[in-house]
Amino acid sequence: MPELRTVEARKADVLTALESQQDMWLATADAAGRPHLIAVSAWWDGTDLVVATTAGSRTGSNLAAGPTVRLAAGAPNDVIMIDARVVESVAANLAPEVADGFAIAVGWDPREVGEGWAFYRLRPTRIQAYRGYDELEGRDLMRDATWLA
Amino acid sequence: MPELRTVEARKADVLTALESQQDMWLATADAAGRPHLIAVSAWWDGTDLVVATTAGSRTGSNLAAGPTVRLAAGAPNDVIMIDARVVESVAANLAPEVADGFAIAVGWDPREVGEGWAFYRLRPTRIQAYRGYDELEGRDLMRDATWLA
Repeated sequence: MPELRTVEARKADVLTALESQQDMWLATADAAGRPHLIAVSAWWDGTDLVVATTAGSRTGSNLAAGPTVRLAAGAPNDVIMIDARVVESVAANLAPEVADGFAIAVGWDPREVGEGWAFYRLRPTRIQAYRGYDELEGRDLMRDATWLA
Repeated sequence: MPELRTVEARKADVLTALESQQDMWLATADAAGRPHLIAVSAWWDGTDLVVATTAGSRTGSNLAAGPTVRLAAGAPNDVIMIDARVVESVAANLAPEVADGFAIAVGWDPREVGEGWAFYRLRPTRIQAYRGYDELEGRDLMRDATWLA
């Protein structure tokens, strides 16, 4: 059995992954309880994850109706799971500083892709990280928006 | 720009991925519109994806309340996205044939892990596959539970 990571080691691994500005999976739901899931570019600015989608998309509609989301990064055998809340949403063409920061971080600019794009600032409330069942114990790195290490 | 895959080529890639019995991401939602997301082992039997979780988990509760799910496989830059419906659920210790097939396919047996596990048979209704924005056109491989190629 591989050595289990401490909370500190898992937090360091998570921050490394977030700072790599990798794409993530974003789960939302509508008011009727239907889930939606997309792949998104995610800009980690040290506090929040900023994602972009079109305001008229299913994800955009879901985010307008309810602030609760869940994001996954890594892989199913190296899970990073983040519960978060939408704390800000803004049209891409009205937020040049956000758009510039996003473009630098993730390598593309929604303003150049088309009309109707918006940014959503997602603030983590819970973060978990685990590699397989053996690491389920100790998987919580953040609870109630507070890092545990 | 890389050559874009035909629908036929994407279907072949998706079937190869499904037959590799890889773990997937499973999005569900509760009746209040809160999304949930977990990593799951998924057994593709040629028609359905069979996943296992504990009936008392958030995913189990969501699946009992509503049949609509969305699964992702691959990676954010090589997306396989599957909308599906729960067509059957059964306690693991009451379904030896399902449990045996699942264990052979994915390499572990929920009956050996603990109490309260159940299998959920998920029937795809829509399947999409794309590698980046360039491939968004032509991403539908199945619609209304019917393969397009």
